Amino acid sequence: MIPAYMRIARGLGSAIKRGALRPGDRVMSARQIAQMESVSVPTAVNALRVLEADGLVVARPRSGFFVAQPPSVAPSRSPPPTLPQSVTIAGLARTLFVARAGELVPLGAALPEPSWLPVGDLQRVLNVAARRIGCTSQTYSVPPGRLDLRRQLAKRATRWGGRFGPEDMLVTAGETQAMHLALRVTCKPGDIVAVESPCYFGMLLMLESMGLRALEVATDPVYGLDLESLERMLRQHRVAAVLLSPTAQNPTGATMPVDAKRRLVQVLAKSRIPLIEDDIYGDLCATEPRSPPCKAFDETDNVLYCSSISKTLAPGWRVGWIAGGRFHEALVQARLQEALAGAPLFEAALADYLRGSDYDRHLIRLRNRVSGSVRAVATRAEATFPVGTRVGYPRDGFLLWVELPTSCDALNVHARALAEDISVSPGHLFSPQSRFTNYLRLNCANEPTSAFLGAVEKIGQICKSAF
Amino acid sequence: MIPAYMRIARGLGSAIKRGALRPGDRVMSARQIAQMESVSVPTAVNALRVLEADGLVVARPRSGFFVAQPPSVAPSRSPPPTLPQSVTIAGLARTLFVARAGELVPLGAALPEPSWLPVGDLQRVLNVAARRIGCTSQTYSVPPGRLDLRRQLAKRATRWGGRFGPEDMLVTAGETQAMHLALRVTCKPGDIVAVESPCYFGMLLMLESMGLRALEVATDPVYGLDLESLERMLRQHRVAAVLLSPTAQNPTGATMPVDAKRRLVQVLAKSRIPLIEDDIYGDLCATEPRSPPCKAFDETDNVLYCSSISKTLAPGWRVGWIAGGRFHEALVQARLQEALAGAPLFEAALADYLRGSDYDRHLIRLRNRVSGSVRAVATRAEATFPVGTRVGYPRDGFLLWVELPTSCDALNVHARALAEDISVSPGHLFSPQSRFTNYLRLNCANEPTSAFLGAVEKIGQICKSAF
Repeated sequence: MIPAYMRIARGLGSAIKRGALRPGDRVMSARQIAQMESVSVPTAVNALRVLEADGLVVARPRSGFFVAQPPSVAPSRSPPPTLPQSVTIAGLARTLFVARAGELVPLGAALPEPSWLPVGDLQRVLNVAARRIGCTSQTYSVPPGRLDLRRQLAKRATRWGGRFGPEDMLVTAGETQAMHLALRVTCKPGDIVAVESPCYFGMLLMLESMGLRALEVATDPVYGLDLESLERMLRQHRVAAVLLSPTAQNPTGATMPVDAKRRLVQVLAKSRIPLIEDDIYGDLCATEPRSPPCKAFDETDNVLYCSSISKTLAPGWRVGWIAGGRFHEALVQARLQEALAGAPLFEAALADYLRGSDYDRHLIRLRNRVSGSVRAVATRAEATFPVGTRVGYPRDGFLLWVELPTSCDALNVHARALAEDISVSPGHLFSPQSRFTNYLRLNCANEPTSAFLGAVEKIGQICKSAF
Repeated sequence: MIPAYMRIARGLGSAIKRGALRPGDRVMSARQIAQMESVSVPTAVNALRVLEADGLVVARPRSGFFVAQPPSVAPSRSPPPTLPQSVTIAGLARTLFVARAGELVPLGAALPEPSWLPVGDLQRVLNVAARRIGCTSQTYSVPPGRLDLRRQLAKRATRWGGRFGPEDMLVTAGETQAMHLALRVTCKPGDIVAVESPCYFGMLLMLESMGLRALEVATDPVYGLDLESLERMLRQHRVAAVLLSPTAQNPTGATMPVDAKRRLVQVLAKSRIPLIEDDIYGDLCATEPRSPPCKAFDETDNVLYCSSISKTLAPGWRVGWIAGGRFHEALVQARLQEALAGAPLFEAALADYLRGSDYDRHLIRLRNRVSGSVRAVATRAEATFPVGTRVGYPRDGFLLWVELPTSCDALNVHARALAEDISVSPGHLFSPQSRFTNYLRLNCANEPTSAFLGAVEKIGQICKSAF
């Protein structure tokens, strides 16, 4: 039995997706919807909010809701292989991640510009924490990590419907460790893990290192994972875990509609296949309030929710966390065995920082900067990249997934860009067997200065001369 | 062909061990040895220095060398099982490592008292590093970690004969991660790993989590691993790796004689079985210069050398490292896959700190404090523990390995101590199948105040009433 507002949202949503309503069209007002559907006005408003969270409509102050501008020309979807594959990208990744002397224009790594981070505030909480617990941190922070931090994190999660407490959380050394532990406690070597296509290479590296096979699931660059494809694949294969970024996916920026997230959780709960959810870009949703993560709908403790502050506050602090549902105890044990403990100074400082409202104010500023910069980079790319390029304007987050003409080889582009002191991430990294050879992922989280946009243009020139 | 000084040292050493020379006896002077053995005086001095490094003789200023006082009553050795065993201590460890509200007298965890650490200096380098690279650390420290730190570490290693450069090192999140990665790249599930008996529980936890089997090798509480037992076991079993703490072993404080370390490296090089060497207490050798780690004798890149600053500087910084020999490239890859990156702020601050001579001065102070405190705790334990207790005075490091009368159950003692707000480490943790049920490990790295020594006495009372 689905709630009325959700039923209404679905109906309107499919009308928009089928083209019955076009971008810029005004959507019925809440009052009109309430009348037509025989529901209360608040229910109708809820339906519109769901559509807004899904990026299908936008609210204009005092004018009502309008169908949103869809991503200009989304990258085409090529159907992924239907069989699980072993992953073989580690060798390539190693050659690409070599530390470079000298500065690069950072279109490669998915990290925000340092000047966008609240450095002063973070230095302050770091000093306070050092005075309080000692900068040498007498003791380790043994798993599950500092309670003050887990309290703050659990409290913030209630805003999106998180129903777990501090005692259900484990602090980790970055989100990479959180996902690594999640795979460890849910899978054994040889197992099959369903992932998005394209998929964040960090996830693929983990699968490769653990001897797990990747089952790629068709993923829309706007609406994220295709649930029907997943269900079909779950019937065909024995999948040990599903590893996804349902919000602001890396590299596409796709966010699954709220309803799809809910259904995904239900489908997996029924088959008892754990969902490992990466929500590292969740705080960078373009809409406010943010699209809730799948964990918000987790009624059977089947979702292992992973996140961190690396994209919004302090990548170098290496603080991540996981709310692991029924796997919590196993995760704590695995962390103890693999890493013994964490760095209490950063944990304590972060707890202090999250206690106030600084983070919320920072996020508003950061989201504005991100959206301006994404727009600037996308515009410049569309203007200067070769004919046939498809620039996938991201729903959320700060990454641009760009499909080049098929004759362009992204590794070649990468090498030539590096010679010009510009880093980019070649598409080869984003599938188990390097399928996306003519794709680039561009990091837009930088001040769109003329130098930065000039580097984007330079990439365009390289692409033009590369085929 | 062994060098003359080593041959002489061996001869004298075995005379001492067999009791031909008794504690307090004067040893021949270098001049007398030179004459008798027809070698130069410097060669004879070298021989005496080897015996001194091995703890067999002590130099008294202007009086010559004397046979050292052996550990008062070393814990008895029970022969370990001759077959590899699966490890089953994680469940117990988890119940013991529960974070406790309130202060405990820290006789449990092997960590130095915070006031013994150079907190002011570390805060200073932390501030300087934060100003230089930004406290949010824009970028991750991608494997192999910051070059400035690796340079300093490699430079320090040359003092004990380390023959590797910065490019052969990988910075890790604490030494636990270093050893974990070392096992990952040398073993696969089901493999057999040779360990000391007793063995640091952190190593056993790793074996358990990775599905590796432990082969316990007889280990003397003073002279460390018994090489003959190891060689016999290597003939009987197919061992994938040897995981040891040859210097200041945890929990016994044993240090293998220099010559035994050298032979160990040769034996393993010949059979191509990698040696994973834990040297975390290496800087806490009682003698100066320190007994070199096995890595000093590694001519075939077969030793994976692991260490960290957790026992001497800043446990909470979680900075460790590994010089992995022929496994270096695989280790870098594995670290990238499991943890992505490290915390550049701590790495940069540590590099700054190690650049000067502060660390050397700090180590002298720390070693003095440790030796005074170990003596005080051992004396108090010998005076107050039940008859039949054997207090194993450690060669090096700050841990006391205490054998209680067989009727004492260490878990019982642990539980009752906890009720008195005192933590201890029960012997159950130090073998794959909890063999050492009547042993305790006591952490002595605390100011020997009357309160601290009172807690030691309290443990004695508990032990007395526990049987």
